[in-house]
Amino acid sequence: MFITLEGMDGSGKTTAIQKIESTLKTLGYEVVFTREPGGEKVAEDIRQLVLTEQTLGIDGWTEALLFLAARREHLVKVIIPALEAGKIVISDRFMDSTSAYQGHARGIGIDNVDQVQRIVIGKYIPDLTLFFSVDPQEAEKRMQMRNEEQNRLDVEGTSFKTKVKEGYEILIKKYPERFKVVNTNLPVVEVQKETEKIILEAIKNYVKK
Amino acid sequence: MFITLEGMDGSGKTTAIQKIESTLKTLGYEVVFTREPGGEKVAEDIRQLVLTEQTLGIDGWTEALLFLAARREHLVKVIIPALEAGKIVISDRFMDSTSAYQGHARGIGIDNVDQVQRIVIGKYIPDLTLFFSVDPQEAEKRMQMRNEEQNRLDVEGTSFKTKVKEGYEILIKKYPERFKVVNTNLPVVEVQKETEKIILEAIKNYVKK
Repeated sequence: MFITLEGMDGSGKTTAIQKIESTLKTLGYEVVFTREPGGEKVAEDIRQLVLTEQTLGIDGWTEALLFLAARREHLVKVIIPALEAGKIVISDRFMDSTSAYQGHARGIGIDNVDQVQRIVIGKYIPDLTLFFSVDPQEAEKRMQMRNEEQNRLDVEGTSFKTKVKEGYEILIKKYPERFKVVNTNLPVVEVQKETEKIILEAIKNYVKK
Repeated sequence: MFITLEGMDGSGKTTAIQKIESTLKTLGYEVVFTREPGGEKVAEDIRQLVLTEQTLGIDGWTEALLFLAARREHLVKVIIPALEAGKIVISDRFMDSTSAYQGHARGIGIDNVDQVQRIVIGKYIPDLTLFFSVDPQEAEKRMQMRNEEQNRLDVEGTSFKTKVKEGYEILIKKYPERFKVVNTNLPVVEVQKETEKIILEAIKNYVKK
């Protein structure tokens, strides 16, 4: 079973998912957590290339193709082997990030990006995608409180983030059977509970199939 | 008008095209010659990444997507501006290279790669593509005589090159209206004459349209 986490940086994805690992292990599931680009040298190098300042001003499609190249490497080297070993894979970001960020916010078209991704990703479309919904201003506030280096997508203005959110909303409508929305404006404990509930229920349904 | 040159390294593309520039200029055409990745920093960086030895063993799709990212940047920054200024653009390598090398020889599927490229390239499909046909063994001999550093695709064995040739042959059958084949086993002067004849005729027909 393949689960992906989507949402803007600062949406609370990482915090929401923190406790689920021990819960799933207690229940006897083998789980692999991974986060794009995923640690593989080629994928990390590609991601580095696209994020360096030198590449400011690159074309939207060039950017999308680079992210997709890194994604493919992560998929082939990390995700597919784990899925084939019967494990549950939870990936922090996957295909919908490129559809929302480059497809919608950069304006090259969600449907175009989706179509390309379907060819490149093949049958490895996620079984469940959790979208961590947050107000763009709130996400920005949270990011500013973090002490990490910001990457170029983080420093884009609020209007870009609003576009990204809009992109995700289009995707949620397009793939209602796959998406579940988590409201992260609630207290952390509530968000974690909600996340756990959704994942456990999806696993149960998946096992039944 | 957009013309592309295709064929294996060692097929004599560069030699064949050497005299056409002055001929076209004498006839009053404005021509831009370019060669992938095309000199743009981002495109060169991507090409460098894919060619470094570190990336040996990357997945076929990852490789295709990286070449395609570099191509898109070259297209947007070099080719489109020249075409929009009414110039004739002649590019040494373009979309068919990825279809033949990664699509067919690496086995990810010509039709898959083609489909992705049509979305990414949009309306900028070449008006004319010259395929410089050469026997793989002959191409290899020529490459060994050159004093250049060889890249990783050059050092692949003869069986890979045979696959590449096969890939091009599939493309020629698939797009007969766009492809013209030049036999480079003839003496250089003959090859140059033939190349010039094909290009001049195509320009005449293009102008008529």
